[in-house]
Amino acid sequence: MTNGHLDIIGRTSRLYDELVVAVLINVEKKSLFTVDERIEMLTTVTKEYGNVRVEKFHGLLVDFCKQQGIPVIVKGLRAISDFDYELQMAQLNYRMSGVETLFMSTNPEYSFLSSSRLKEIARYGGDVSGLVPDLVKELLVERLRG
Amino acid sequence: MTNGHLDIIGRTSRLYDELVVAVLINVEKKSLFTVDERIEMLTTVTKEYGNVRVEKFHGLLVDFCKQQGIPVIVKGLRAISDFDYELQMAQLNYRMSGVETLFMSTNPEYSFLSSSRLKEIARYGGDVSGLVPDLVKELLVERLRG
Amino acid sequence: MTNGHLDIIGRTSRLYDELVVAVLINVEKKSLFTVDERIEMLTTVTKEYGNVRVEKFHGLLVDFCKQQGIPVIVKGLRAISDFDYELQMAQLNYRMSGVETLFMSTNPEYSFLSSSRLKEIARYGGDVSGLVPDLVKELLVERLRG
Amino acid sequence: MTNGHLDIIGRTSRLYDELVVAVLINVEKKSLFTVDERIEMLTTVTKEYGNVRVEKFHGLLVDFCKQQGIPVIVKGLRAISDFDYELQMAQLNYRMSGVETLFMSTNPEYSFLSSSRLKEIARYGGDVSGLVPDLVKELLVERLRG
Amino acid sequence: MTNGHLDIIGRTSRLYDELVVAVLINVEKKSLFTVDERIEMLTTVTKEYGNVRVEKFHGLLVDFCKQQGIPVIVKGLRAISDFDYELQMAQLNYRMSGVETLFMSTNPEYSFLSSSRLKEIARYGGDVSGLVPDLVKELLVERLRG
Amino acid sequence: MTNGHLDIIGRTSRLYDELVVAVLINVEKKSLFTVDERIEMLTTVTKEYGNVRVEKFHGLLVDFCKQQGIPVIVKGLRAISDFDYELQMAQLNYRMSGVETLFMSTNPEYSFLSSSRLKEIARYGGDVSGLVPDLVKELLVERLRG
Repeated sequence: MTNGHLDIIGRTSRLYDELVVAVLINVEKKSLFTVDERIEMLTTVTKEYGNVRVEKFHGLLVDFCKQQGIPVIVKGLRAISDFDYELQMAQLNYRMSGVETLFMSTNPEYSFLSSSRLKEIARYGGDVSGLVPDLVKELLVERLRG
Repeated sequence: MTNGHLDIIGRTSRLYDELVVAVLINVEKKSLFTVDERIEMLTTVTKEYGNVRVEKFHGLLVDFCKQQGIPVIVKGLRAISDFDYELQMAQLNYRMSGVETLFMSTNPEYSFLSSSRLKEIARYGGDVSGLVPDLVKELLVERLRG
Repeated sequence: MTNGHLDIIGRTSRLYDELVVAVLINVEKKSLFTVDERIEMLTTVTKEYGNVRVEKFHGLLVDFCKQQGIPVIVKGLRAISDFDYELQMAQLNYRMSGVETLFMSTNPEYSFLSSSRLKEIARYGGDVSGLVPDLVKELLVERLRG
Repeated sequence: MTNGHLDIIGRTSRLYDELVVAVLINVEKKSLFTVDERIEMLTTVTKEYGNVRVEKFHGLLVDFCKQQGIPVIVKGLRAISDFDYELQMAQLNYRMSGVETLFMSTNPEYSFLSSSRLKEIARYGGDVSGLVPDLVKELLVERLRG
Repeated sequence: MTNGHLDIIGRTSRLYDELVVAVLINVEKKSLFTVDERIEMLTTVTKEYGNVRVEKFHGLLVDFCKQQGIPVIVKGLRAISDFDYELQMAQLNYRMSGVETLFMSTNPEYSFLSSSRLKEIARYGGDVSGLVPDLVKELLVERLRG
Repeated sequence: MTNGHLDIIGRTSRLYDELVVAVLINVEKKSLFTVDERIEMLTTVTKEYGNVRVEKFHGLLVDFCKQQGIPVIVKGLRAISDFDYELQMAQLNYRMSGVETLFMSTNPEYSFLSSSRLKEIARYGGDVSGLVPDLVKELLVERLRG
């Protein structure tokens, strides 16, 4: 979770009454943090927005949306390499479920951030201050060096 | 105005309480239809949605949004060639005014439509049925041949 | 195999006297279906075109083309993310063998389909009707749930 | 007309029994050479291929194809900036007429050539040898300086 | 001239002993400022770097480089839509003259700026503070409203 | 290592007093050649340039640059699919360390080459003459078949 993600969450929370941040439970992919650790982190750093709820889901995102009565998915677009994949997913999701996807441009200041790059920087002792929330920075450093 | 535009307007109108379609008054660009003719066409074909209002504006779009108290601009993205320009405009508009821009993927069925191509097809007698609303088709044929 | 692939095969078969659909034998990549199962599926769903032959090959595609006396490879292009890779392969293949590659635009209606996405949808019980041929749908559901 | 165009014409002529090179009559666009001059140049430099016919047309390309009984348009793709426009034209043309478009990758050696750049180079006395056919080079220099 | 240009000039000036900023004399294109006015502005705002010289040129950029003994052109890349054009120009320039082109990524903070957009904003009374150097801002406002 | 890489190294070596070619020690990725074998190959084929030094490094590239007092990274750009990733890395590296990145366009003649494609061609007995340096070709064939 980077400051880029947090920026998208914060800006989206101001446009809607309620925002659900959905975390995929993916048993096949090894992550540095467990799903529950990630939910706790997200909950803590998004508490200040007041209308953000963090939930985990399993399976297809559109099924989760329909169960929860969520009519719109909001995604951040950082760069053109995200574009094709996300546009195709949006069209497929709409066709399957009627759930719409809206895209929001990443703050240019964070456009070069990605989770995998930040993890690599932290692993080699690089300084990630200002690139991730402070809480995430501490946990990342602890986990990678610990 | 193509069926691609109408699809974006229709889908957006279902996501918000009220949708304002903003038509730029551009005195430097010669158009086939006047601003008032375009407003009349748009008003007629969007009447069925119930919550769509068509307005003309002059100057900067973000100034119009602020005057009208509009917090979000929704734009259709057809293809990657729209992407850079629109993303940069979104970032500039946000920086200048705090007005956000959300992007919606064009229905793939209409992804190859553009106003200038349709005008060219109509000019040479090509059939634009199913590509523009029927009303627009009639007016287009009348204007181009008349 | 999606309806997007079938659309490319069908349209290409109308442009040439004979069309060979080449299936790579890739022992390193685990697939849901074996090469022979895929050949059987492809043979069944392309039978109606009359001039399509399905073959498996091993090694380099251009070597297969030269053995079979095939002068042109036809590929579908879905989106810009396919473009760079395919263009570079086409240039490399031409340089190595003189075999040309021609690209055909995917039907926009199927532009958001990919095999891996469809497999994921089917795995979680999503409905893939209209996105893959009926025969493939049945086999996919059987294999993934069975 | 550059060596890039000639490369596409030569390679396409080897894949089909007959190739028609279609030159648009565009009265609105000022060109350095008239349509008839361009047809004469193209006829001269493509004579060696034996199966290339050069024709002018007016209006929509697909109408010309249908009048002439031409089932396939072949276009060169130089770079990603051509891609979106050409893919959308291909989809629109297919929808309007059933005429297919196939794309061929430009020889990388010529991928940086465009008519307008070459004209600018020639205008300022730059050397365009090896970038356009010799005949075109002579006529270009004569016309621009003459 | 935007803060994005100034950022590229400043960063490049630190990598080389001397930097020449080249301004094209283009009689066909109407500009808000004359070439001499632009040279004066550029000279003033780049004075602090100490090793930047501003020059005007006519004709081809590579001819100017060869006359001046300049071995490398440095260009800023803002976004993917600049990429194709600039890469092709770089390849053509190298082929014609042996002059190399190196690209530098724009500071993300300025990636959404373009001269034409800023001019439009200033024309309608929008605030361009922080987007262009203060001197340019004053002259721009004066010229556009004056 | 392809002729595309060698072209970038050779052209860069002419623009700077000294050029360091940095080889990442990546224990997680299996390679056909060890780091020391690659360093030996690179040293041999770049000897003719006179001012090229080959070094291995571990960890972050920017840390290596700072230890060595290297102010600029030069990277080759082959195609648009490299662009986003490389631009974002450049921006991140600059933000973390102040080390700049400059991009150089690949020679179009080699724009379709990639290490993984060449390895695949060599594995199946395809001819890679003219695509990699002769020394690399011999070692590649030996290793893959041996």
